This record gives sequence, C-alpha cells and structure tokens, in this order.
Amino acid sequence: MTAVTSSSTLAADRSDELTLLGLVGQLELIAFTRLAADSAVAPALEQQLRLARFSAGAVARLERIFDRIRELGGSPQGAIARFSHVMDDFDLRTPSSNWSERLLKAYVGYGVADDFCKAAAAGLDDATCALVMETLDGTSHAELVVAELAAAGKDDAVLASRLALWGRRMVGEALGVVQSLVQSEPGLARLVADGEPAPADEANGGTYHIDAAARLFGRLTAEHTYRMERLGLTS
Amino acid sequence: MTAVTSSSTLAADRSDELTLLGLVGQLELIAFTRLAADSAVAPALEQQLRLARFSAGAVARLERIFDRIRELGGSPQGAIARFSHVMDDFDLRTPSSNWSERLLKAYVGYGVADDFCKAAAAGLDDATCALVMETLDGTSHAELVVAELAAAGKDDAVLASRLALWGRRMVGEALGVVQSLVQSEPGLARLVADGEPAPADEANGGTYHIDAAARLFGRLTAEHTYRMERLGLTS
Repeated sequence: MTAVTSSSTLAADRSDELTLLGLVGQLELIAFTRLAADSAVAPALEQQLRLARFSAGAVARLERIFDRIRELGGSPQGAIARFSHVMDDFDLRTPSSNWSERLLKAYVGYGVADDFCKAAAAGLDDATCALVMETLDGTSHAELVVAELAAAGKDDAVLASRLALWGRRMVGEALGVVQSLVQSEPGLARLVADGEPAPADEANGGTYHIDAAARLFGRLTAEHTYRMERLGLTS
Repeated sequence: MTAVTSSSTLAADRSDELTLLGLVGQLELIAFTRLAADSAVAPALEQQLRLARFSAGAVARLERIFDRIRELGGSPQGAIARFSHVMDDFDLRTPSSNWSERLLKAYVGYGVADDFCKAAAAGLDDATCALVMETLDGTSHAELVVAELAAAGKDDAVLASRLALWGRRMVGEALGVVQSLVQSEPGLARLVADGEPAPADEANGGTYHIDAAARLFGRLTAEHTYRMERLGLTS
C-alpha cells in the first residue's frame, strides 16, 4: 500500500514536469517540420544539407524527451498533443517573405522558446532539468543563421534595417506566445517561479508571481538583444 | 608511380559506382523533404510522428551514402548535385490532392526508385552494393501506407478505384523517370546491364542493352504490381 501511495504522490509531483516535457517535445516536433521546410527552399545545397541535419537532430531530441516522459509514467503523445497549437497564432501572424526572414524567424522564435523552456526547467532539480538543458543546448542552427545574416547585413544597410524591424516583430510575437503559455498553463508558471532565484511569495499560493513574470520577460528580452547583436542588428 | 597509376585506375573504375551513390543520396535527400512535408499535413499525431521518424531516417541513410562516397574519393555534394532535378518533372506532373494520394505517390515513387537503384547496385560486387541494398531495405514506410490504404480501400469501392487509377499514373511517371535516367546516365545503364543475369553482349560495347532494358522494366513493373496487390488495388 505504501508503494502505491508513494507512486501516486510521485505522479502528482511530476505533473508540472510532464507538462514541460510535453512543451519541449512539441517544440522539437515543430522545429523538425520547420527546419525541413527551410531545407526544401534553401538557396544552395550546402544549406539544404545543414538544415536537413538540424531537422533530423530535432527528431533525435524528441525521442529522448519521449523516453523521459515514459520513465515518468506519462504518455508521450498525450504530453505533446496538449501543445499542438502552441505556435499557430505565431505562424499566422508572421509569414516570412524571403530566405533571410525565414532564417531570422527561426533564430528568434527558437531562441525565445528555448530560453523559456530553460527558465521553466530551472524549477526542477533532477534528470529532467539536465535533459532539457542539454536538449536545448544545440547552437548549430544559430551558427548557420549568424554566418548567413551577419554577412548579408554588413554590406547592405537597407537589408540590415529591414531585418532589425523583422526581428522586433518576431520577438514581440514570441513573447506573446510565452505570455499566453504562462497564463494558460499554471504548471509552467510554477516551474518558472520556482526556478527564479528570489524566494517564492507564499501569500501568492504558489501561482505565477508578478515579480517572477517581470524577471522572466527581462531575461528573455536580454537574451534576444544578445542574439540580435551577434547578427550586428539592433534589437 | 605504380601506386599513383593504380589509384587513378581505381578512380576511373569507380565512376559508375559514384554516379549510383550520387543518385541514391539525392533520392534520400528528396525522401527526407517529402516525408517531412507529409508529416506536416498528417491527419493525426501518430502518423505525423511516424513520418517524422522515417524522414529523419532518410538523413541517417544519406550520411552513410556520403561516408561511402568519401571513402571512394568522391565529393558527396558533387555526387548528389548531379541529380538535384531528377524528380522535378515527376513532381510537376503528379500534384497529389489528398492524403491518400500523397501516401500512394510516395509508396509507388519510392518503390520504383528503390527497385531501380537496387537493379543498378547489382552491377557492383563490393561494399557499395551491400550498402545500397541495406540502405534501400527500409520497409517501414511501406507498412504505414499498406496499413492506411488497404483499410481505406476495403470499405470504399470508389476510393479503391480512384487510388488504383492514381497508382497507374504514378507508376507511368516513375518509369518515365527511370527511362530518362538510363538514357542520360550511361554509367547507370552499364550497372543495370552488368547486374542482369544474362551474359553481356560484347558487340554492344558495354552500352545499355535493349534486352537489359526490357528485363529491367519488366522487373520494375512486376514489383509495382506486387506492391499494389498488398494494398488490395489493381495495378
């Protein structure tokens, strides 16, 4: 009987963790699809192949997330299905019209998504945290984008200013996605709040704290600024 | 001096082999892109995930083909670039209008392409032959299609007859691709002729023999008929 109780307590404790894993898994599935579509329209074979490899890499990361969900007793498909529409609004509002915009959209969008997932993973202190941090530590796609866009923007002030504007639109939309996620998913809000270094406000009953929100958005914006600087673009 | 001579003789001998590896590599890259696009529009998460895995699997196979091209002293990108337009006509002429047609198109198209590459690989008697046979031995995608379409067609005679017609169009177009490949790539024609059990016609100077062509198309058609039978459809 003790074993049953402790196992069901475990399951309850793990539900925020499973929520986060579901989000990370869905984002990997979306990354797979996007990167494959980018690969299909890449201007040269070199980029087509690199994007194909990144895309396949997202499937490999998805499998590791699935393994962890199973270890925790969750259903992989159930966990990711919950977030199947997470990027629909973002996509609807940000149709990219050329190759540079496509690259920048992925760079900014994945950047914010990864940073958010890492902030939530910081609320965990176990194998899942390590897995999420490691899964989202892929910098190769960013390097491709930096190599392509930094060079393009350097010689073309008009392009640089257009891309800077596009980057601002992208980050605004991406932060909007984060905003609605922390509002609609209390589990993610709890993880983000738990991951913040400041002590949790007990009076707030464990729900998402306004200071935690402010710190999260401050951090996401700072990371975005750093990413745009790498491209030589103003954020 | 002997070493240099034998190395350049080797390179000359290997050129048909590199041609075939280039074709197989390009077909894997195309399969990656197609399967990812199919995954993106799959009607359910289960199929979306399966197709994502097949798509990522094509990239893994592509890497093995690239390794072999490098071993033989060739350029992976150069080898596949030669075939970058191999499916353009096929695609232009066969826009699929729904999920069943999409699945069947891939099933028939990859089926014929794989059979052709295996027929050409039979003209080699080394590690490349084994690699190509093994690379193209993936039956998982076929199983997905059989499971989906056999069930769908069984309960719906109109759908079954429409798919049978679509299958006939697909195989006609696919055989057209093979036809233009053996005409435009003498190396592939040589390999197919060498792979045929009948003795080569020396008077024909090693070029593609009419009997070899007849046998090849006979075999490709027979394999196609078998594949359509698995779906319960007439070919």
